[in-house]
Amino acid sequence: MMKIDILSLFPEMFEGFTHTSIIKRAIEKGVVDIKIHNFREFAHDRHQSVDDTPYGGGQGMVLMCQPLLDCLKTVVTKESLVILMSPQGATFSQKMAVDLSKEKHLVIICGHYEGFDERIRDYVDLEVSIGDYVLTGGELSSMVITDAVTRLLHGAIRDESHEDDSFSNGLLEYPQYTHPAVYDGQEVPAVLLSGHHENIRKWRLKESLRRTLVRRPDLLENREFTSEERAFLKEIKAEMKK
Amino acid sequence: MMKIDILSLFPEMFEGFTHTSIIKRAIEKGVVDIKIHNFREFAHDRHQSVDDTPYGGGQGMVLMCQPLLDCLKTVVTKESLVILMSPQGATFSQKMAVDLSKEKHLVIICGHYEGFDERIRDYVDLEVSIGDYVLTGGELSSMVITDAVTRLLHGAIRDESHEDDSFSNGLLEYPQYTHPAVYDGQEVPAVLLSGHHENIRKWRLKESLRRTLVRRPDLLENREFTSEERAFLKEIKAEMKK
Repeated sequence: MMKIDILSLFPEMFEGFTHTSIIKRAIEKGVVDIKIHNFREFAHDRHQSVDDTPYGGGQGMVLMCQPLLDCLKTVVTKESLVILMSPQGATFSQKMAVDLSKEKHLVIICGHYEGFDERIRDYVDLEVSIGDYVLTGGELSSMVITDAVTRLLHGAIRDESHEDDSFSNGLLEYPQYTHPAVYDGQEVPAVLLSGHHENIRKWRLKESLRRTLVRRPDLLENREFTSEERAFLKEIKAEMKK
Repeated sequence: MMKIDILSLFPEMFEGFTHTSIIKRAIEKGVVDIKIHNFREFAHDRHQSVDDTPYGGGQGMVLMCQPLLDCLKTVVTKESLVILMSPQGATFSQKMAVDLSKEKHLVIICGHYEGFDERIRDYVDLEVSIGDYVLTGGELSSMVITDAVTRLLHGAIRDESHEDDSFSNGLLEYPQYTHPAVYDGQEVPAVLLSGHHENIRKWRLKESLRRTLVRRPDLLENREFTSEERAFLKEIKAEMKK
């Protein structure tokens, strides 16, 4: 079982997350154990302060070392990987999710306010950002990582589900259709109704390639192609010129 | 006031999000109005089905057009921008957050399960992904976008707070420190205790540049530099060679 400890000033933000859907089921099945720790409880003064004004002046408040690091010491063991959510971290990716899913114990620190004391970084193994945008805190980011990692753990979802994931074969997913065959005048492509498995497989692979080429050509840059894929790409490029 | 309507099968996942911190305050101040709509309520059959098996075969279930689009029709007006959360969408960025913050009405559709009927895309203005990783659904992604956009709305947070944001000037933030001056043997840099404002400004700019160069050189690629910044970059590169 993987253990995930999350340090946050807003533990109530996680309630919906840990009580819904796949995460809830993974917790109930013993696949993952998720605990939220409010490091405000480790503040010493009577106002329970966790932040203070920055040295050198400037707007906003900076998270102090003491309450956060005292809380951290209560959860860290030799098996822990300590992750700090930060806009300055390495960008989270599916590859990183796979790597993290092999760890035994993740400790995730959620920053908040305008920043945190630089010296906190000395106690961190990995800084992670979920993308190039600014959020009010690290809470949503820590849930994103927890979600992406948990669904990869054995027993969290059907193992076959991973095979069709976008990015799992380096391509975007092909178009999907379900009932009815005609909706608001729009028909399902005939090949999908044909029952011809090999033609369906080919159509899906080609449409995956087409979609990736149009929307995310960067994903194709360092990819190794099969000869079938190369032939489809040639067809697609010819079709696009028409 | 900006309106944000979110279509999701898991409305309970949003409770912590809309009841905490900056988002809660923005709602109370009338800066933003956030409503969650469960499109399962628009299912017609007695099982309240929202998904079905894919045409052409394959693992998993695909979201059907009817319940989702019937729900969509009840919230969309001429002023709406309809966003579909999808791993195949354009990658969310701070620039996109700024663009979206100028809209009057965002409608965000959360996908779930293995996928959705391709014909749903015909009713969507913009497909967005928050990054290259696979999540169990679009709920967390829709919260990320709502959070990033809401904090940019006038009155949501102190306007000065935006000035120090990572990415807002194209650089990562400089190191921050707060009390005490020595923690666990680690000292705050002397310049920050000097009270010399101009030296502090220069130190911070240089450390922002250094950090961006080391951690995210891609952010510097298309940036225009001031002559002061160019001089600091030259110093930093010389220092790194030592």
